[in-house]
Amino acid sequence: MKRRSLIAAAIAAPAALAAPRVARAQAQHNWKLVTSVPRGLPGPGVSALRWAERITQMSGGEIRVQVFGAGELVAPFGTQEAVESGTAEAYHGSGSWFSGRDIAHSFFTAAPFGLTFDEMHAWMYYGGGQELLNEFTNDRNLQIFIGGGSGVQTAGWFKNEVKSLDDLKGVNFRAAGLYGEVLRKVGVNPVSIPPGEIFAALQSGTLDGAEWVGPANDLAFGFENVAGYMYAPSPVEIYGGIEFGINLDAWQALTDAQRTMVEAVSEAEANRSSADTFHANLQAYEKLNAAPDLVIDTFPDDVWQALKDASREVIDEVKDTSDFHRRFVEAYYAYARKSTEYKRYYDTPFLVERESFFS
Amino acid sequence: MKRRSLIAAAIAAPAALAAPRVARAQAQHNWKLVTSVPRGLPGPGVSALRWAERITQMSGGEIRVQVFGAGELVAPFGTQEAVESGTAEAYHGSGSWFSGRDIAHSFFTAAPFGLTFDEMHAWMYYGGGQELLNEFTNDRNLQIFIGGGSGVQTAGWFKNEVKSLDDLKGVNFRAAGLYGEVLRKVGVNPVSIPPGEIFAALQSGTLDGAEWVGPANDLAFGFENVAGYMYAPSPVEIYGGIEFGINLDAWQALTDAQRTMVEAVSEAEANRSSADTFHANLQAYEKLNAAPDLVIDTFPDDVWQALKDASREVIDEVKDTSDFHRRFVEAYYAYARKSTEYKRYYDTPFLVERESFFS
Repeated sequence: MKRRSLIAAAIAAPAALAAPRVARAQAQHNWKLVTSVPRGLPGPGVSALRWAERITQMSGGEIRVQVFGAGELVAPFGTQEAVESGTAEAYHGSGSWFSGRDIAHSFFTAAPFGLTFDEMHAWMYYGGGQELLNEFTNDRNLQIFIGGGSGVQTAGWFKNEVKSLDDLKGVNFRAAGLYGEVLRKVGVNPVSIPPGEIFAALQSGTLDGAEWVGPANDLAFGFENVAGYMYAPSPVEIYGGIEFGINLDAWQALTDAQRTMVEAVSEAEANRSSADTFHANLQAYEKLNAAPDLVIDTFPDDVWQALKDASREVIDEVKDTSDFHRRFVEAYYAYARKSTEYKRYYDTPFLVERESFFS
Repeated sequence: MKRRSLIAAAIAAPAALAAPRVARAQAQHNWKLVTSVPRGLPGPGVSALRWAERITQMSGGEIRVQVFGAGELVAPFGTQEAVESGTAEAYHGSGSWFSGRDIAHSFFTAAPFGLTFDEMHAWMYYGGGQELLNEFTNDRNLQIFIGGGSGVQTAGWFKNEVKSLDDLKGVNFRAAGLYGEVLRKVGVNPVSIPPGEIFAALQSGTLDGAEWVGPANDLAFGFENVAGYMYAPSPVEIYGGIEFGINLDAWQALTDAQRTMVEAVSEAEANRSSADTFHANLQAYEKLNAAPDLVIDTFPDDVWQALKDASREVIDEVKDTSDFHRRFVEAYYAYARKSTEYKRYYDTPFLVERESFFS
């Protein structure tokens, strides 16, 4: 509890001017940042490197951040535990990968009919999201900052056309986390399989379909060569967020000026990496759109209706996990509902009208 | 030309590690930042202060940024010229305010059926937007970074219902910039009037309607008390951007590490201030939605059709200004068109399906 209130004070207090240079120069921080992807992988790998380089450079080396790719220091999905224990000072990864440790982690990546990119940032910085994140992670010696999102993801790739809900019954479909839970309730058989094996499983027929991320990441796997139908948008993977988790002791050992660097670079990265992914998706989508034998569509109405019903059930189940989870999920969806009301007369009709402007 | 290529190199080059501390400590930069709004005004005023404080703090005072509100050092809309001449080192303001100096400035705030918030950031950082901005400003001794946007704005407030295009003919309507040009072509009489006088002009009947920004800023003026109809979204003010302009000599006098600070803090601010405005809009919209006598709606179909035709004419007129403007506008709309294609199966249907999920 003491730890938590210290952090809250550090975040909430207006930034004081830096201590004199002499004082600043006293401490040297050597940070290890662990990621779950290969070092420098386009998208998340580049984002982790840029975060590390910017902090190292602007601190004049007072905080020197060294990046370790998947498996170089710890197991790919052992990064969060490594930061809690102090094996590493920071990790960069998707919240949903840690949802087995606490289901609330998933909501910063994938939540049924959840927050979009702009909504997530507003909720985190101004709507109480950061405080809720602190509440279930500070006690585990973690300080997490959001680091950007993929935007609304693809619902999935299918070998056969989805003409109605019946076509989803019993299909073997690669899906992770809460999306898998929602799909199970509408009759899909969700399969857990490592990313590197999805293509071969689709090709051999072991899988009838699969979801991964969005155009840029999916194109890299070449799914359009083994599945003729691409459906978007996903009903669950909306923000698609990646985060920076920092060891709380390492965070508290920083000066105010150094904390401002880490916070500002994280906020810049949430902006930059989202823009990077968005741009990459535009280029990839153009290629997919030009693929002669690929059908791009949205799910039919009865599938959407079933997905909505199933999503409500899944959300209720998460709420029932604990008092904290009820409070967390209710706060999250109250924000989503409020923004949905707002966008009803702003973003949504604008996008619809612009479509006809360009067609 | 020499100046321009230096800047391009500084931006494109991978960040080198900072010079040793001894070298970093040699130069002291005292920057004056001028804004067009009162110092500390909620939204843009707070954003300018946070940018200044973060840079001052994380540089240990090597760059000390002092903020001057509207009229404190230069006239409210003389800020860009003041930075070009070196009277101030930086300004914070909306690009559209400088569109009289070059119409291309407007596109970073308001462009007919233009780029949304996420699209603008992707275009600027990865799609060639920053390079085009540099092209028409570096020669004027300016280095500009985007600083966040309001998101899709309100189309306008009207004293009478807009049931069809006929209801727009001849109405006296406060509108600025390219939006005013589009409205003129559909028969509106656009009126230029200082923001502080809009409320009284609506009340007295001098104006039949007015546009300002979005829910948060409009609610601050109390427009719902003098105009019973609010229409959204705007067909022109989509990103609603505000930018940081920096004197090029001052920018070039910085070390690599200091430039990384200014760049990262600007990118963080583009994220933060957008989230701030978005959150404020959600709260304000909820209040407007609860106002008993206010009608909130979108324009009828024939108005949208006329606005699209008028927008195409206005865009063509801007293109014809010069070879640069043709290239600039074509690049801008090529990006918007590409993103529109992409969002057709991602953001747009997701927002529509989520609406029914929550209703």
